Amino acid sequence: MTERTLILLRHGQSTWNEKNLFTGWVDVRLTPKGEEEAKRGGELLREHDVLPDVLYTSLLTRAIQTANIALDAADRSWIPVHRSWRLNERHYGDLQGKDKAETLEQYGEEKFMTWRRSFDTPPPAIADDNEYSQAGDPRYADIDGEMPRTECLKDVIERFLPYWESTITKDLEAGRTVLVTAHGNSLRALVKHLDKISDDDIAALNIPTGIPLLYRLGDDNMPVAPGEYLDPEAAAAGAAAVAAQGKR
Amino acid sequence: MTERTLILLRHGQSTWNEKNLFTGWVDVRLTPKGEEEAKRGGELLREHDVLPDVLYTSLLTRAIQTANIALDAADRSWIPVHRSWRLNERHYGDLQGKDKAETLEQYGEEKFMTWRRSFDTPPPAIADDNEYSQAGDPRYADIDGEMPRTECLKDVIERFLPYWESTITKDLEAGRTVLVTAHGNSLRALVKHLDKISDDDIAALNIPTGIPLLYRLGDDNMPVAPGEYLDPEAAAAGAAAVAAQGKR
Repeated sequence: MTERTLILLRHGQSTWNEKNLFTGWVDVRLTPKGEEEAKRGGELLREHDVLPDVLYTSLLTRAIQTANIALDAADRSWIPVHRSWRLNERHYGDLQGKDKAETLEQYGEEKFMTWRRSFDTPPPAIADDNEYSQAGDPRYADIDGEMPRTECLKDVIERFLPYWESTITKDLEAGRTVLVTAHGNSLRALVKHLDKISDDDIAALNIPTGIPLLYRLGDDNMPVAPGEYLDPEAAAAGAAAVAAQGKR
Repeated sequence: MTERTLILLRHGQSTWNEKNLFTGWVDVRLTPKGEEEAKRGGELLREHDVLPDVLYTSLLTRAIQTANIALDAADRSWIPVHRSWRLNERHYGDLQGKDKAETLEQYGEEKFMTWRRSFDTPPPAIADDNEYSQAGDPRYADIDGEMPRTECLKDVIERFLPYWESTITKDLEAGRTVLVTAHGNSLRALVKHLDKISDDDIAALNIPTGIPLLYRLGDDNMPVAPGEYLDPEAAAAGAAAVAAQGKR
């Protein structure tokens, strides 16, 4: 059996991470720090000789920037690219554009944590005339009927996994090393599936930014061993930082 | 009839343009000036509201960098991307890595101009053990049998046009605005076809770097009007600069 190689990479700091706002599908850019994280991610790929043959990204600029920078640092800019809205961050509904700390103060810890981490309770839907809605964004013209106005993690899984099964795994099966550059919640959706994490336990999983997470998969496209971060120390520190988000 | 929109963009200055070396398939990067040209190219797309729906690039980093920077400047990083070796620069054979001015002095104007501009006389082939050969480069593993060791413009046309016919035109026919980011000679190959330029006259055509060249095509995927540079003054100056290359 030839092992299949999958690399997950969460984008680095964005301008709204820095401002502590709920972002979701709002198309903000990386900060200079986020660009540095992406570069380091690419250097880690090269240092560990884990060189992707094909790239999958979301349709959000911050993930695409991360992929472009990381592949450039790994000297693999030329690999084929596939982009899909199914890899997008969780749609944060009416919370998009709102300050995390203020939302916490206004609604209290329980509602806040439910919206952030409940498996199956989405926030209120965003109105199409909200300035942070994606209604009318040309990049989603093709998926008009399917475009979410809010999502819980369960919704993300339901739109991500069909793409995993139908498309991404085909590249793995062809022997290609696959890089997926995406977001905190879309990557949590995939890791939940790969590591068979329960609906309750997934709330505690935090994926750090900018550090490639490497999986070796078997013939069933499930891990033959636990996933490994290419920089484990930085990953532990990064996961703790994500867990602390929204707490002043 | 709905007109079809095609945009051609030649990559900006590379480290070897600057050094006046024959580059061909050698995978050199943009200079800071080349990055600026790419950014200006993307800004021109935005200013003229010519927004690509799909991108085609070669497999060479300088064209990919150009596309990434230009699309970022036009806020269209999220469009689908297709890469193909068929859009690569002309393979310069054994001249790859050699200084243009020295080659001119050593071989004389006639041979130099033949190698640079003859329609159907390629330079000597490059040896696989030459340090500037692409033999063994993983990005060409899939096309092993077809990989050139030298090319004249006629060869470039013969490997580019089938891709144009079979693939790029399909996006145009579907109503998508297509951006092709490539090289001096691969774009000359396409322009020769579009503008029905004779084998003799194509030698005098110089495509400037970094300035989008816009074509409106009809149902037969041929121009309904001459192509237009989005910055005609800069284009004229740029074409003159290309024509003067290799002359000290």
